[in-house]
Amino acid sequence: MKSIKDPIVGIIMGSKSDWKGVMEHCSEMLKEFEISFDARVISAHRTPKRLERFISEAEKKDYQVIIAAAGGAAHLAGVTAALTTIPVLGVPMPSVTNGVDSLYSTVQMPAGVPVATLAIGKAGARNSALFAIAILAQKYPKIRQKLKKYRSEFESKIPKRPY
Amino acid sequence: MKSIKDPIVGIIMGSKSDWKGVMEHCSEMLKEFEISFDARVISAHRTPKRLERFISEAEKKDYQVIIAAAGGAAHLAGVTAALTTIPVLGVPMPSVTNGVDSLYSTVQMPAGVPVATLAIGKAGARNSALFAIAILAQKYPKIRQKLKKYRSEFESKIPKRPY
Amino acid sequence: MKSIKDPIVGIIMGSKSDWKGVMEHCSEMLKEFEISFDARVISAHRTPKRLERFISEAEKKDYQVIIAAAGGAAHLAGVTAALTTIPVLGVPMPSVTNGVDSLYSTVQMPAGVPVATLAIGKAGARNSALFAIAILAQKYPKIRQKLKKYRSEFESKIPKRPY
Amino acid sequence: MKSIKDPIVGIIMGSKSDWKGVMEHCSEMLKEFEISFDARVISAHRTPKRLERFISEAEKKDYQVIIAAAGGAAHLAGVTAALTTIPVLGVPMPSVTNGVDSLYSTVQMPAGVPVATLAIGKAGARNSALFAIAILAQKYPKIRQKLKKYRSEFESKIPKRPY
Amino acid sequence: MKSIKDPIVGIIMGSKSDWKGVMEHCSEMLKEFEISFDARVISAHRTPKRLERFISEAEKKDYQVIIAAAGGAAHLAGVTAALTTIPVLGVPMPSVTNGVDSLYSTVQMPAGVPVATLAIGKAGARNSALFAIAILAQKYPKIRQKLKKYRSEFESKIPKRPY
Amino acid sequence: MKSIKDPIVGIIMGSKSDWKGVMEHCSEMLKEFEISFDARVISAHRTPKRLERFISEAEKKDYQVIIAAAGGAAHLAGVTAALTTIPVLGVPMPSVTNGVDSLYSTVQMPAGVPVATLAIGKAGARNSALFAIAILAQKYPKIRQKLKKYRSEFESKIPKRPY
Amino acid sequence: MKSIKDPIVGIIMGSKSDWKGVMEHCSEMLKEFEISFDARVISAHRTPKRLERFISEAEKKDYQVIIAAAGGAAHLAGVTAALTTIPVLGVPMPSVTNGVDSLYSTVQMPAGVPVATLAIGKAGARNSALFAIAILAQKYPKIRQKLKKYRSEFESKIPKRPY
Amino acid sequence: MKSIKDPIVGIIMGSKSDWKGVMEHCSEMLKEFEISFDARVISAHRTPKRLERFISEAEKKDYQVIIAAAGGAAHLAGVTAALTTIPVLGVPMPSVTNGVDSLYSTVQMPAGVPVATLAIGKAGARNSALFAIAILAQKYPKIRQKLKKYRSEFESKIPKRPY
Repeated sequence: MKSIKDPIVGIIMGSKSDWKGVMEHCSEMLKEFEISFDARVISAHRTPKRLERFISEAEKKDYQVIIAAAGGAAHLAGVTAALTTIPVLGVPMPSVTNGVDSLYSTVQMPAGVPVATLAIGKAGARNSALFAIAILAQKYPKIRQKLKKYRSEFESKIPKRPY
Repeated sequence: MKSIKDPIVGIIMGSKSDWKGVMEHCSEMLKEFEISFDARVISAHRTPKRLERFISEAEKKDYQVIIAAAGGAAHLAGVTAALTTIPVLGVPMPSVTNGVDSLYSTVQMPAGVPVATLAIGKAGARNSALFAIAILAQKYPKIRQKLKKYRSEFESKIPKRPY
Repeated sequence: MKSIKDPIVGIIMGSKSDWKGVMEHCSEMLKEFEISFDARVISAHRTPKRLERFISEAEKKDYQVIIAAAGGAAHLAGVTAALTTIPVLGVPMPSVTNGVDSLYSTVQMPAGVPVATLAIGKAGARNSALFAIAILAQKYPKIRQKLKKYRSEFESKIPKRPY
Repeated sequence: MKSIKDPIVGIIMGSKSDWKGVMEHCSEMLKEFEISFDARVISAHRTPKRLERFISEAEKKDYQVIIAAAGGAAHLAGVTAALTTIPVLGVPMPSVTNGVDSLYSTVQMPAGVPVATLAIGKAGARNSALFAIAILAQKYPKIRQKLKKYRSEFESKIPKRPY
Repeated sequence: MKSIKDPIVGIIMGSKSDWKGVMEHCSEMLKEFEISFDARVISAHRTPKRLERFISEAEKKDYQVIIAAAGGAAHLAGVTAALTTIPVLGVPMPSVTNGVDSLYSTVQMPAGVPVATLAIGKAGARNSALFAIAILAQKYPKIRQKLKKYRSEFESKIPKRPY
Repeated sequence: MKSIKDPIVGIIMGSKSDWKGVMEHCSEMLKEFEISFDARVISAHRTPKRLERFISEAEKKDYQVIIAAAGGAAHLAGVTAALTTIPVLGVPMPSVTNGVDSLYSTVQMPAGVPVATLAIGKAGARNSALFAIAILAQKYPKIRQKLKKYRSEFESKIPKRPY
Repeated sequence: MKSIKDPIVGIIMGSKSDWKGVMEHCSEMLKEFEISFDARVISAHRTPKRLERFISEAEKKDYQVIIAAAGGAAHLAGVTAALTTIPVLGVPMPSVTNGVDSLYSTVQMPAGVPVATLAIGKAGARNSALFAIAILAQKYPKIRQKLKKYRSEFESKIPKRPY
Repeated sequence: MKSIKDPIVGIIMGSKSDWKGVMEHCSEMLKEFEISFDARVISAHRTPKRLERFISEAEKKDYQVIIAAAGGAAHLAGVTAALTTIPVLGVPMPSVTNGVDSLYSTVQMPAGVPVATLAIGKAGARNSALFAIAILAQKYPKIRQKLKKYRSEFESKIPKRPY
């Protein structure tokens, strides 16, 4: 069984601008769980070869999950899912239509090639990490423990009063 | 490691009417991969105790994935995800607003508690099974082989001409 | 009959950030009518146990109305309504999709478990208080008088000319 | 205290066509709880005088709740709420835009005059009755008992398996 | 035939805040055509009596057109149209849902009571004046001349190059 | 003053298929008021010359109102309004997107060239006639009388009970 | 210059079901103009290799235009455009959300890789052929003549009266 | 064959305000490819004669493509396409409804008169130039070379890491 210090999660995003304020929250969450990952800028439309190289590398290195973030006609997650059987999580980026185009383009995949989609924007970025963690938790007891601890701490960390 | 003949996937849906023409496609896909599952009608709103019993059973039996289908103000997947760390997949059911309400209610989860969401309706039902299979494929080499075979057969099964 | 100085309205919201500029308008309106209330941060997803405790307390203390505010996949009002027969009012919070996801998640409840929903954001916050007041007005003549007075003052308080 | 055999709930709808398949489910639910009601066709736009007469009658007879159903530019609930302090529940009817216009026209009321809105169509029709019942349950112990019984029966009435 | 110096157009809006940046553009356009008007703040929901008084006055003074602006569950134009046979123009105000709720609530009137609706916000405010002017142009040759002149000047007033 | 037996209303629609079940309701309403009209199939896109000829004829014959119905990217009303100062009413036709595209294309006109828009489909067809009648009522006392009578009959024609 | 009898237009669609009632209208239009084409079923997600082979063939045979039709998370046109500099036209297929998801997924391409998109469904299918013809018309005078003739015949083919 | 230094692309936009931050990106892209163009402000509604003159000039000068940008009830591209057989590309401008009205008004053209539509706003502006370039590339080998070079440079210009 591979060490959780090797990259086991791949994070790809269609544009560098998807990082700041959005996808960096995905990486922070993975760091909080000490899970190794590899973050890249890959565009399904502008760098299709780079995507192919990334996927073959991901398969060779046995990545457990790929997280793909894109906006507008967001094809990155779908095209990635078409090229691998590694589970692909999609994160729709905010956009000119409030992320509705990104959401539809990511989630409405045809039968046969699934993309499991999280919420639009920052919440989705964070939750993509947490869903990856939930998958990894089934293999790695240590991650499972941490996840249970993280969840149990909501009670004490969330304030009881709004003022 | 548990046998893949025990239920390892839980399928829950908010109403019996979600089965015919929609969620039965999820069960068929799992059967095609010889994966054991347990399908139940559980409503987050009308049978909350049944949901709690299901989840504690699912944790005891070590289900690997829970697939939750609901329509309208579709809270089933989210409420399930709030009560367990087992990965929860959401399938938005068709509805009076063409499933848009179901989709938003399932996918737009707040940071901390993820639901990984598939497409509205039948395609989502089928893909929820396939995504569960992709997760299981990482543990069970036999499932991984089957999944790769299933994917490779698209080429020959999809007709080349539309007429 | 219980005194209207004990908390008779419960206000819960999914996140502390729902208070400022939005739900504080609910509390202000209740204060204007001298109605006692109890405001808490409770997340259906992150603090489900806290929600259960709140509801059992609300039932013991005989709260007359519960106002639940949440955004995105806003399940708080629905999950609350599933656990009690106290009337539950839902207030959809502004969100990345302009509150449309919050609205659908709150209002589109399945037959059997109603959530009575107010407008998105600040107007809904204020009106949730006023609707609670309208319910209380049926039991408490003093509240009814105040409500009629409040309504009758619109004529004099709203300016006649726009400039 | 008035007998629950006198009409205590008023049901109004913008068009006769709102009854069959939709609002009749509201009346059936009230009948199931043996609650007396009065159902009328009243259009905010085509019979405004009839609406005024209805409201003054409702106030004289001390109706506890008014349920108003309308479609499209659905003003009935809002205009009713403007003329009385009796709690008004709105039920958006299905329409050419799948009820989205009806929903917005009913729920997005300005601060000051609330309409508490239920789901689009049949589910909303049924739930408007149940929400009225929840309000009445606070005054009438017998209704409260029935409501608790109704809710507790979901467990046994909803089938456990989808097939 | 009445002088065009008496108010012949009524402008009503649901809130004082609809004036600045939006409905003031309606008044400016009417001033440009030297058409007398009367602008008031009238809320269908908060000042229904004021609306009735305004309409009976408008009928007595023989207003030729009424322009009604409102946002959210925008009932003002519809309720006005229900109470008079004077042509009513609706202007949907910008809102939390980008004016989509205001538009639907204004335009989707049931058969029998028309509201003729202009664009959301400032463009609609200006065009409501111009449409009123087009109606008046049929009675007043002087207005017709001015309208034709106004339209013919677009050619010279709109720049030919974008930079 | 011209006789109301000459065509004084022009009805144009983008396709012959807009007539049956939709725009025929506009003509029926005009007939009910004995108002002469001229109905044509004219497409802004496919028969632009026919549109120009129609408009110059309409201006020569002094039509009082033009009603323009179209679906999808519904430009007919807007292009007509660009070529004449006769008041133009727009009726958005049902479409693949439930008429939402037709509505936006008709109502969202830029400042300077107004189209006054009625509801999507049959209700809008009927109301376009009624709005034209309201405009004509200001010139023709006989039409005004009929309109007042038509409106006053709603009370007696609309059934009081829904069953 | 290549003969217009060789395939010069490629038509690809994501599923065989896109043909009947939709994309067959594209082929009929091309036939009407005697333009040779090649129609294939190719899924961006299920047969990515087939897509690559098709594109390299299309480039070798010097196709002038590629028309790509797909529904839901419709990536076919975008992925095709990413792999070639041949102009790609996108046709969004009707779907569970009335084609809105297909439209957004096709048209909202990021800067750098354009897809020129036609209307949802049958009208878009027909117009994709006509747009391809308009491009070809610039190279082939014979096609240009036919196109002008086709357009000029609208006047005589479209009926003047709707009844 | 005409020199590529003469204007071969026409850019028209409904308002001067469409240039800054949006359509200037179209012109910049064309300049990058050294393609001559002519940019004008032309409103389908406010300057219809100017549009006619522009089109007849465009046809005389044999423009290869016309790019039309407009917002709201965006008729410019459609009306242009109705008057010429030169390929017309539509660019929907951002608007009060996030460009959704502009998109629908541009893309949903009826069968017979196509407008090939690009993304809302800046991305669409840039891509309209690139799509025009792709059309021109078929005639001008030099443009084709540049386009291939432009596309091949994405790999090196897009950063590999997001931080």
